[in-house]
Amino acid sequence: MDAAPAPGNVARWGGLPILRRKIGRFKIRMDIRDMTAAQLDVVGIGNAIVDILAHADESFLDRFGMSKGGMRLIDETQAEEIYAAMGSAVEASGGSCGNTIAGIASLGGKAGFIGKVKNDGLGRVFRHDITAIGAHFPTPPDETGPATARCLILVTSDAQRTMNTFLGACGNLGPEDVDADLIASAQVTYLEGYLFDPPHAKAAFRKAADIAHKAGRKVALTLSDAFCVNRYRAEFLELMRDHVDILFANEVEITALFETGFDEALASVRKLVPLVAATRGAHGSVIATADETIQVPAAPVAKIVDTTGAGDLYAAGFLYGYTQGKSLAEAGRLGSLCAAEIISHFGARPETPLNEYVAAAAA
Amino acid sequence: MDAAPAPGNVARWGGLPILRRKIGRFKIRMDIRDMTAAQLDVVGIGNAIVDILAHADESFLDRFGMSKGGMRLIDETQAEEIYAAMGSAVEASGGSCGNTIAGIASLGGKAGFIGKVKNDGLGRVFRHDITAIGAHFPTPPDETGPATARCLILVTSDAQRTMNTFLGACGNLGPEDVDADLIASAQVTYLEGYLFDPPHAKAAFRKAADIAHKAGRKVALTLSDAFCVNRYRAEFLELMRDHVDILFANEVEITALFETGFDEALASVRKLVPLVAATRGAHGSVIATADETIQVPAAPVAKIVDTTGAGDLYAAGFLYGYTQGKSLAEAGRLGSLCAAEIISHFGARPETPLNEYVAAAAA
Repeated sequence: MDAAPAPGNVARWGGLPILRRKIGRFKIRMDIRDMTAAQLDVVGIGNAIVDILAHADESFLDRFGMSKGGMRLIDETQAEEIYAAMGSAVEASGGSCGNTIAGIASLGGKAGFIGKVKNDGLGRVFRHDITAIGAHFPTPPDETGPATARCLILVTSDAQRTMNTFLGACGNLGPEDVDADLIASAQVTYLEGYLFDPPHAKAAFRKAADIAHKAGRKVALTLSDAFCVNRYRAEFLELMRDHVDILFANEVEITALFETGFDEALASVRKLVPLVAATRGAHGSVIATADETIQVPAAPVAKIVDTTGAGDLYAAGFLYGYTQGKSLAEAGRLGSLCAAEIISHFGARPETPLNEYVAAAAA
Repeated sequence: MDAAPAPGNVARWGGLPILRRKIGRFKIRMDIRDMTAAQLDVVGIGNAIVDILAHADESFLDRFGMSKGGMRLIDETQAEEIYAAMGSAVEASGGSCGNTIAGIASLGGKAGFIGKVKNDGLGRVFRHDITAIGAHFPTPPDETGPATARCLILVTSDAQRTMNTFLGACGNLGPEDVDADLIASAQVTYLEGYLFDPPHAKAAFRKAADIAHKAGRKVALTLSDAFCVNRYRAEFLELMRDHVDILFANEVEITALFETGFDEALASVRKLVPLVAATRGAHGSVIATADETIQVPAAPVAKIVDTTGAGDLYAAGFLYGYTQGKSLAEAGRLGSLCAAEIISHFGARPETPLNEYVAAAAA
């Protein structure tokens, strides 16, 4: 199924005259408003991944040596083996940053995504889904090379998700994919820590941060995963000190980063980064600046079905509120609400349009 | 992703010695117990389809001329157009009969499926999912020709689903795909009315019914859809009189078939078919034989999210109960329970293993 962005999606970018602009070998249609000042709220750079979700019991995780709640990288052969053994599944676009960008678009924000897929079935699914929800996705797909990335997610009866990622085409994301105009046009450039795994993405990451800062924009980072933190601790700390304005992390990730308890970790991180949002599951989140600490409760959920995407959607709500000029407390409240929507069903993209969900919660 | 049945799935077919048996060009591993008497509870023949589900509003249905709640056939070009315009989607194996067979397997029944996919991405998804849930799926995939079938399903805010099916590879299902041993080995052969749409499937349908009856087995049919009933009314009536032992239909389908009210339709159908299960949404179902009428209430659901698959899963619960020798009332109760599970979430394959769901409802 070909899923090139439909005119209907492009039209969301405004009613002004459209011009054809050549990017590499690909012609895409862009509204000329995109080319002027601060037109996007958030642009994300991340691994473009399709999730394949199934229920599993703990013995399945043990059998394949998976660590519950974490993300590990697997090769194509392992991906085949685990897929063949896992239960009946559901496919849905994912990727930590992709989920956040989709969430911001669903809230009504103007969002863009940079990430690498192949021009294959899953790649077309990823492109369809992120553009259909209203985000801009200019990165051309690869025509050759590894397949589009997939994440085999096993959801256990306690609603926890354990992730096995075959990065595939994401390995080809590099600095040449970072569109300087796009980055400069966004209030916030949002980067996922998982980007440190593919070989060239780190360079893309640093290039984007430089462009954003030179344009007077903010750079946000999510630590992504405790194992990811352990893989890249020194680099993360250096990046945070020099390049990061807003940090997202959950309790496990932030304590892994500083190899200490939560309070000590928070005390350390607020010296490095101007604005930190640390999520604590059912205990809500803590927003910290140099001189302010705000406790935000978790939003109520009738039944937690699948925690996949909870942190990603918290970031979506927070960044939407932040870029709309809301208070930090209100941004945190929006983050909690979006996380509540996502954990109440299977999968990490919103089922209810988030602008409607937030409006219903306010009513 | 290659999703050939894993050894783990084959192993569910028993602990007896396994022999390699050549079916066409394909070697599959089958337990020799399958080759003896009545080893399967139910074998289904149906269109092998992957569902692509998204939320939509009524204006979207109007824009594409869709009739809410129905199923229509579309060609590949229409499939591309609708997909490009529809929202962020979720992919999950579907097909009316495929859903029923998956449900029976999930209940712990021994189930098989005959249907045609291509050896492409969606075809491998379909094969993975139906075998992963424990069903037997011996039909070899096509290597050339049209792509695996997909159904673009738009779910409106009233939880109704409107379906647009591109039949693709299903058009190649023919009598040569009906494995006589497999049909003869099943207590019930279950056929979906939608099989009248692909050109050669009708012949497969009649061949399977003949084999089943010669082996002393039962033949079940679901009317599938009111539009389908209108397309094939005369043929359905002839088939029911001559070949069908158990009929599944909802209120709209059965009244469409006889072009009359529900009570009159029920009076007519019980003269044609020995056992009828007619579903009535929130009003439960009516089970009718020549001399008995049983009212079965609907099972409670906290929130109806998506009615896709409700009828398919009712048939799964009913046929599982029936082939386990339960009373008709108990079979109907199992049907209601399975339908309740499926409408409480997005998609038409069970999220909770149905044997656990049924056990929890009994507790």
